[in-house]
Amino acid sequence: MLSTDRFFPPDPTVRSIARRLFLEVENLPLICPHGHTDPAWFALNEKFPDPAQLLIIPDHYILRMLVSQGIDHAKLGVRETGTDTQSADWREVWRVFAENYYLFRSTPVRHWMDHTLETLFGIEAPLDGKRADDSYDRISQALSTDAYRPRALYERFNVEALATTDSCLDDLSSHSAIAQSGWGRRVIPTYRPDGVTNPDAEAFASNIERLGKVTNEDTSTWSGLLNAHRKRRQDFIALGATATDHGHPTALTCDLDRTECVSLYDDILDGSATARQKEIFRGQMLTEMAKMSVDDGMVMQIHAGSVRNHSSSVMSRFGPDMGFDIPERIEFVHALRPLLNILGHDSRLTLIVFTLDESTYARELAPLAGAYPCLRLGPPWWFHDSPEGMMRYRAMTTETAGYYNTAGFNDDTRAFPSIPARHDLARRIDCGFLATQVAEAKLGEDEAVEVAIDLAYGLAKRTYNVEQTS
Amino acid sequence: MLSTDRFFPPDPTVRSIARRLFLEVENLPLICPHGHTDPAWFALNEKFPDPAQLLIIPDHYILRMLVSQGIDHAKLGVRETGTDTQSADWREVWRVFAENYYLFRSTPVRHWMDHTLETLFGIEAPLDGKRADDSYDRISQALSTDAYRPRALYERFNVEALATTDSCLDDLSSHSAIAQSGWGRRVIPTYRPDGVTNPDAEAFASNIERLGKVTNEDTSTWSGLLNAHRKRRQDFIALGATATDHGHPTALTCDLDRTECVSLYDDILDGSATARQKEIFRGQMLTEMAKMSVDDGMVMQIHAGSVRNHSSSVMSRFGPDMGFDIPERIEFVHALRPLLNILGHDSRLTLIVFTLDESTYARELAPLAGAYPCLRLGPPWWFHDSPEGMMRYRAMTTETAGYYNTAGFNDDTRAFPSIPARHDLARRIDCGFLATQVAEAKLGEDEAVEVAIDLAYGLAKRTYNVEQTS
Amino acid sequence: MLSTDRFFPPDPTVRSIARRLFLEVENLPLICPHGHTDPAWFALNEKFPDPAQLLIIPDHYILRMLVSQGIDHAKLGVRETGTDTQSADWREVWRVFAENYYLFRSTPVRHWMDHTLETLFGIEAPLDGKRADDSYDRISQALSTDAYRPRALYERFNVEALATTDSCLDDLSSHSAIAQSGWGRRVIPTYRPDGVTNPDAEAFASNIERLGKVTNEDTSTWSGLLNAHRKRRQDFIALGATATDHGHPTALTCDLDRTECVSLYDDILDGSATARQKEIFRGQMLTEMAKMSVDDGMVMQIHAGSVRNHSSSVMSRFGPDMGFDIPERIEFVHALRPLLNILGHDSRLTLIVFTLDESTYARELAPLAGAYPCLRLGPPWWFHDSPEGMMRYRAMTTETAGYYNTAGFNDDTRAFPSIPARHDLARRIDCGFLATQVAEAKLGEDEAVEVAIDLAYGLAKRTYNVEQTS
Repeated sequence: MLSTDRFFPPDPTVRSIARRLFLEVENLPLICPHGHTDPAWFALNEKFPDPAQLLIIPDHYILRMLVSQGIDHAKLGVRETGTDTQSADWREVWRVFAENYYLFRSTPVRHWMDHTLETLFGIEAPLDGKRADDSYDRISQALSTDAYRPRALYERFNVEALATTDSCLDDLSSHSAIAQSGWGRRVIPTYRPDGVTNPDAEAFASNIERLGKVTNEDTSTWSGLLNAHRKRRQDFIALGATATDHGHPTALTCDLDRTECVSLYDDILDGSATARQKEIFRGQMLTEMAKMSVDDGMVMQIHAGSVRNHSSSVMSRFGPDMGFDIPERIEFVHALRPLLNILGHDSRLTLIVFTLDESTYARELAPLAGAYPCLRLGPPWWFHDSPEGMMRYRAMTTETAGYYNTAGFNDDTRAFPSIPARHDLARRIDCGFLATQVAEAKLGEDEAVEVAIDLAYGLAKRTYNVEQTS
Repeated sequence: MLSTDRFFPPDPTVRSIARRLFLEVENLPLICPHGHTDPAWFALNEKFPDPAQLLIIPDHYILRMLVSQGIDHAKLGVRETGTDTQSADWREVWRVFAENYYLFRSTPVRHWMDHTLETLFGIEAPLDGKRADDSYDRISQALSTDAYRPRALYERFNVEALATTDSCLDDLSSHSAIAQSGWGRRVIPTYRPDGVTNPDAEAFASNIERLGKVTNEDTSTWSGLLNAHRKRRQDFIALGATATDHGHPTALTCDLDRTECVSLYDDILDGSATARQKEIFRGQMLTEMAKMSVDDGMVMQIHAGSVRNHSSSVMSRFGPDMGFDIPERIEFVHALRPLLNILGHDSRLTLIVFTLDESTYARELAPLAGAYPCLRLGPPWWFHDSPEGMMRYRAMTTETAGYYNTAGFNDDTRAFPSIPARHDLARRIDCGFLATQVAEAKLGEDEAVEVAIDLAYGLAKRTYNVEQTS
Repeated sequence: MLSTDRFFPPDPTVRSIARRLFLEVENLPLICPHGHTDPAWFALNEKFPDPAQLLIIPDHYILRMLVSQGIDHAKLGVRETGTDTQSADWREVWRVFAENYYLFRSTPVRHWMDHTLETLFGIEAPLDGKRADDSYDRISQALSTDAYRPRALYERFNVEALATTDSCLDDLSSHSAIAQSGWGRRVIPTYRPDGVTNPDAEAFASNIERLGKVTNEDTSTWSGLLNAHRKRRQDFIALGATATDHGHPTALTCDLDRTECVSLYDDILDGSATARQKEIFRGQMLTEMAKMSVDDGMVMQIHAGSVRNHSSSVMSRFGPDMGFDIPERIEFVHALRPLLNILGHDSRLTLIVFTLDESTYARELAPLAGAYPCLRLGPPWWFHDSPEGMMRYRAMTTETAGYYNTAGFNDDTRAFPSIPARHDLARRIDCGFLATQVAEAKLGEDEAVEVAIDLAYGLAKRTYNVEQTS
């Protein structure tokens, strides 16, 4: 049985405060303004196929740990590039997972999975090899019922709004279908233009062409490119989008004049651009996106600092998102300055920054967000979306940026069933942090309640403007 | 009412030890060997004008947080550059602050201000909008009395010695006036030559000229420049100065030979120097200052790693020190090596290093200070002068550098009334750290008492030589 | 008297769990797979000379702290380079240490020394100047008995296997003598080839020649060099070695083709190589060592990121290992990629990486080790082999890499008598960390027991393959 006091600090005084705070936030609806669930799930509302394909395959956290201990992706049922159909003995994949469940001890996967298995499927934690088959059968049985279809789970999870992340070239057919279905729940797209802002992206040239076709703009010119973005952003906004997202190698922003932009874009398109020019192009596109955000009101997110596909053999055999993206050192102070110098004080812009380099929390991001009106700190991202990671985030950002320059929680997941577990964990950790603040007389308990509600619900809703009618 | 146990760890055993340790240090006099109060306050001893100009305007911590939430500097009464007189509805400024007091939750401003309002003005924490007017009136009333004049507060605060930070071009008239006033308390200057050591400083060329005039030296030559420094340092020493301070972009030190210095200085003066040469000049001047410290005994401080005036619009509208200095990554190991290779083992030199980049605590500064006799670690600086910041400092430096290679506490503030609050907070955090050491049987309680007294009082006094007669 | 609860977290619930966990690991044998003890001690089994030469001189942790407070190496009896004989008043050296014992408060030296003095010599902690002579006499008396000879101590310490670190040019005579002595305990060498892989090493050219002579290979050619390594590795393996160790300035690895290697090696040998080429040579040699590990099964260790001999005056007066090695910022993500791209998924390779830059724990090393099958995280190294350092290591690595991608504990010491103290401390800290995990319901106590045993014993034994017969 999951402990009702899980993740709270052990000191009895702190724990009792944490319990009281958590009671105030435990049942608040879930705001999911950034994530990677598949909108087709909610458009089609089909049953999920089986436990392994639902809970293991989409979760690179799980894959990476098993691989790190010598279990090949192929053995886990991951489809090899070039093979047409994916077929695996999913029960066997689940067994491998169950037998190696001990590897996840003290990692967030363990916490999320324990919660998911118990609350969703009635399976007592921790999983182990002996109960592999039994648990597989129980989950399979549940998935065969209507109560476990995507929309039913969405409702069961008490989600109030959920944003997916979508290529700016996506036809948004799933989102249209959801909107027209009369379901009445909010699943909204997020504008992610990396495929046409990053010259190193796969199929960049054809992406630029497609963007032109979709928008009826001449994207071989700089002004046509910008117009195409403006139009496409409106398409997303029409389906409820309130935010854009930008996954860049670095946080560089640039402020070139028009002539320089035109010339740079020419070099990009004719393939003559150097690596440095490509970096500048990405940086300039961030600034252009910020300018458009000032006009159309979309909140802007930057996720920077991940070295994608570090293992060339994993990339060539299985493709991206297989657990081999590795963070690297990153710099924000000089990188963001060009954008901030134009728009940093513009009240129409909200720019949420995420980092994988915790050394930037106290040194760079909290000082920046604690000064510039447009800036908000994204929640602890990816590897740091964990108990210790969230505690370090609060400990290293709060004293300089406060609570109100942070953006609230994102679950940021492809693993749909883990969404309640992730919010539960984040709310508990924040309540534990706040409880310690109260116990150390840094904050009144009445104030801590207000803050807890904002961290769990209000800040995400307000920062991402998801309170507006879609 | 302020909790008597505020800022102590919640565990009852640890807390009771912390209480006992704190009793030993609570009433020790305050040593303030580095800060930014205005010596004119103590020279003239005039009444402070009003609550907002005393408590808000000089405090960039407060300005930055309010600005970060969209409240413009101008609305806070900050004078715009080029306007001659500063006039604002100070009561209204105070109201804005009070209404937004919740933004400071869990930040050090909150802790300092709660303490200041309650202990100095009898206003119960936390402030809020409802009590804006009442608190404004109460503070105004107090400030109209003699008991709240600068010298009375200095005495009330139990300050034993207080150093200001003064341009090397300052005429020190306020310090002279204090010395001649017969007041008998110690307010001493600190030699800060950045205006003539940093070629990028505003008015550098004219500063160099002025330095020549003041000292009757030909500062257009390298030897004249050094002589001018030597003389000016004596002027400061004559008024009690025991330390110099150097605010540099990086910690680079250099060791050029005389010919190289002469040639470099020529390039600096004729304006032909590159950015790299300017950096080397700053680095060489640090080494020259260290050599002079060996001769005249002044303790040397380096504050490095802040990107000043990050927002160009704030800089152009309001000038420096408006909350838009942002730390950046910094390096000490190679940067300090040239200086340390000449003077690192010289028992006549004390060099105190401050950082805004906490990743250097355990990696660079504690190993360096735990080896070189001349080096001492400055206390947690600026953004890190906070409960979590101070805890991280002790946690990351003590095991390698011990306690006795640290320099004791600095309040480093422009906000004079907050000085007791800052020392109170620092003493409580150190007692909490030590109490945990005792509870974990790492240290005897009798030893912890000795260390607590040194951290609160002895180390600052000895490191900065402020026990000497002024 | 040492507290039986030392180093456990103060919360009573956590502490009682920690106690129970520690009972399970307290008496497990010591696995010492990486360290710097002198194999001659165990070969000759002579009595140790005196307290100072046993406990102070080999311990750069002690030297550095005393030097940092102005006590010269010479005063501590360290032999100056060029002087033939070392003679000092060892009793006086011990007195200086005892009088300055307070400098080590809250540092690991204090914890190790308290434990060593009490458990080995019956001297109650903490040492002080008053008991300098008495403690000197008691230790001297003990050292004069057979029970304190090296082999007796090895047995008393319950060591199961101990690896020394040996130049690849070492004749291994001590190891041969141990093997032939019939003693029957495991003291094994570790292959450390820095003297022939680092072109900046002292006597590099003559080292390369010697390597050729020892192996009867022509080390003036690239293929001869590689053959020589292969043969020498076999010599080490024959005496029980299971691991290699590489102390490099950076973690750079390279993957040149054969022609490039030949050409680079030519430049290295004829002295024309640039600093960058030397760095590439070191990087290529790491990759070559990894390839050989795949063939011969030796586990590979990389210790990178220390700036050796930072103080030129200490280096010239006293030589290396005098406490003046300083960590610097380091990068692993790009540096290790060439090696990982060839061998990262090869199940025959184990590569253990150590860092002195804690900012790489969560950002780089845990993500890498939590993905690549070959990688394991070495325990907290050097300055970080301390209570707070070990806690930070677990807090920053576990959530991403888990426990089973870490390599277990190393004492890594030259200070033989401190070995039990170091393992005791590490086991207590790990039990405290695990106890907190249990108290926060992140881990079952039964699981924590399994993990505690693995962290204290199993992981080191398995990762380093020291369970194999020597």
